[in-house]
Amino acid sequence: MTTTHDFDRLEIGYDIPARPGMAEAEIQTPCLILDLDALEANIRKMGEVSRSYGLRHRAHGKMHKSVDVLRLQQELGGAIGVCCQKVSEAEVFARAGIADILVSNEIRDRAKIDRLARLPLYGGRISVCIDDAENVPDLSEAAVRHGTELHCLVEIACGARRCGVETPEAARAIAEAVGAAPGLHFAGVQAYQGPAQHLETFEMRRVALAPAFDQLRATLDLLAQAGLAAGIVTGGGTGSYVLEAESGLYTELQCGSYAFMDADYGRIRDRDGQRLDEGMWRNALFVLTSVMSHATPDRAICDAGLKSLSMESGLPRLHGRDDATYLGASDEHGTIEDPHGRLGINERLRLVPGHCDPTCNLHDWYVAVRNGQVETLWPVSARGKSY
Amino acid sequence: MTTTHDFDRLEIGYDIPARPGMAEAEIQTPCLILDLDALEANIRKMGEVSRSYGLRHRAHGKMHKSVDVLRLQQELGGAIGVCCQKVSEAEVFARAGIADILVSNEIRDRAKIDRLARLPLYGGRISVCIDDAENVPDLSEAAVRHGTELHCLVEIACGARRCGVETPEAARAIAEAVGAAPGLHFAGVQAYQGPAQHLETFEMRRVALAPAFDQLRATLDLLAQAGLAAGIVTGGGTGSYVLEAESGLYTELQCGSYAFMDADYGRIRDRDGQRLDEGMWRNALFVLTSVMSHATPDRAICDAGLKSLSMESGLPRLHGRDDATYLGASDEHGTIEDPHGRLGINERLRLVPGHCDPTCNLHDWYVAVRNGQVETLWPVSARGKSY
Repeated sequence: MTTTHDFDRLEIGYDIPARPGMAEAEIQTPCLILDLDALEANIRKMGEVSRSYGLRHRAHGKMHKSVDVLRLQQELGGAIGVCCQKVSEAEVFARAGIADILVSNEIRDRAKIDRLARLPLYGGRISVCIDDAENVPDLSEAAVRHGTELHCLVEIACGARRCGVETPEAARAIAEAVGAAPGLHFAGVQAYQGPAQHLETFEMRRVALAPAFDQLRATLDLLAQAGLAAGIVTGGGTGSYVLEAESGLYTELQCGSYAFMDADYGRIRDRDGQRLDEGMWRNALFVLTSVMSHATPDRAICDAGLKSLSMESGLPRLHGRDDATYLGASDEHGTIEDPHGRLGINERLRLVPGHCDPTCNLHDWYVAVRNGQVETLWPVSARGKSY
Repeated sequence: MTTTHDFDRLEIGYDIPARPGMAEAEIQTPCLILDLDALEANIRKMGEVSRSYGLRHRAHGKMHKSVDVLRLQQELGGAIGVCCQKVSEAEVFARAGIADILVSNEIRDRAKIDRLARLPLYGGRISVCIDDAENVPDLSEAAVRHGTELHCLVEIACGARRCGVETPEAARAIAEAVGAAPGLHFAGVQAYQGPAQHLETFEMRRVALAPAFDQLRATLDLLAQAGLAAGIVTGGGTGSYVLEAESGLYTELQCGSYAFMDADYGRIRDRDGQRLDEGMWRNALFVLTSVMSHATPDRAICDAGLKSLSMESGLPRLHGRDDATYLGASDEHGTIEDPHGRLGINERLRLVPGHCDPTCNLHDWYVAVRNGQVETLWPVSARGKSY
């Protein structure tokens, strides 16, 4: 049940980087490729992990922004639905018929709230985060106007110093306001701690998350005392989900990056000390690049730079070869140290991006490959949907 | 003669961030906005500067990737055409009727060469860079097959350690091979030094470029001795164009960032010691963002993070106010230090991006504003065209 396109009507290069049936060496670079065997294995494993903890998995669509990848997460991994960060992303998933969508973020602009409140008209359940009681009247008014219901999750800060309330009392006040507002339903709590995800060792992540779980526990206790049952407690990411699961506080996990992996997550260690990309998860996402210049013997220049790879979390890693290193980037070029002069002009290289989310957001297509051949292409459906 | 769209048929949010006639405060954020007064002033000034040196200006389309901005550069600034880095960008400009296009880069993949060799069929002159004699037969064969001509510029390295030949002899060998190949025309030399552009002082840039000019001079001398006249000598950027112009070696300048400016170029100094964004050029490009959470008194969270701003050259700068500072970003959030608690929910802020080129490549639209009102929208025509 994937997106179908009339690929024959699309032009190679101008419209699409490849066509189904092509060999990997013919793909027009740079572009995203997905190793389907690895992707499917990761997705199945996350399904097993969630079930083993008795938790639901709500896949984070902010990472891949793809209706097709989400459907695979639902089919193979039992994902119950999607979360995303922007109303425009939710619009893409809702129009595609996804039935359970959480905007894991605060929506304050009147026009955006109006767009959000219209989304249940597509037939699914729409949830949103809230961290300020002053947001309640705007959300309520819009839901009433459209004859819809918005499910509200109070976001708690968890020490992430981003959005979210700092105290259980503030959470209760918002939950009460939501509960009393027409068109709104108090659905639960979001507790996600971003900075803890990328700490190198499991123990460092455990220590960083302990206060977050204390805040969450105190909040849930206070809500329960006030008769406000948090039906959903949502959070967790690829770096920390074992800790959220073992805390016994959550009902669902939001992991996203596990499906694709990246260099930044790959280098952190799990509880057993194993790299995340060597034991639990496989690298499924690559930026395919070609060597385009080798004007000096020890330095190859490839065609993937800052417009094909997000570098803010570190440089990409060359996959499957340790005789060359991606050294630096400019807008459209990557410099590769090739001390033995082994890279040939037009040679294809697979790069593991430093950070998958903003890298995927640079591209229009995923080229899905298996056994060295293009199986299909999927659009990055919500690419650039940031507003 | 700008792109026309039936904006009434496009949906705010899902399709476009704004409509002509809207107030700036109604624009759906985050998105790119262009201050038209500043943009037009920058473009006119570059036209005057180029003319004052007797040089042509070939605007670098890799920066804005916009047919509409390029047309403005041609109309108001007298730009003779465009350069771009990728065949897919050239395809966008060629289809739009731009008559003089330089792909300022090496093209080695057979399928890409085929696409390139078809572009003169749109009616314009197509030029391309070359740094390896082995590229000549492939380019020649494709041009002959399509009955077209490709204008070839030998790229010299200029100490940039990227593409380009290292010696005058290597340049001559390539120029000779080009001259002898059917379908190809030896057009001249490209000498662009990227790393020098961003050095802080004019003197540092002068010192860094001196060896590049020596290499270029020696190359041009050797080519002239061999009877290979370099009709075009192209290069120069927003940081260094005065030096290229005064060298007397160039026939055209490739400046791109001058039109929009960014924080990274803005902080460097011109010959008089003035910041580039305070004397010569005005900030015309901004990412418009909204405050979406203010859960703690001294910290506002805005809706523009890594998917709206390229951060690899530094964080964005808040424009027009020094009482708050953009401190850090995650994928969809920016953290703003607001020590006096002055920022209100939904308040719009203009951010000057660290680096304009990869920031523009994140967005689908430019919202062009004048006097606080949306005048029009222009698509980022070649956004994501990296292959």
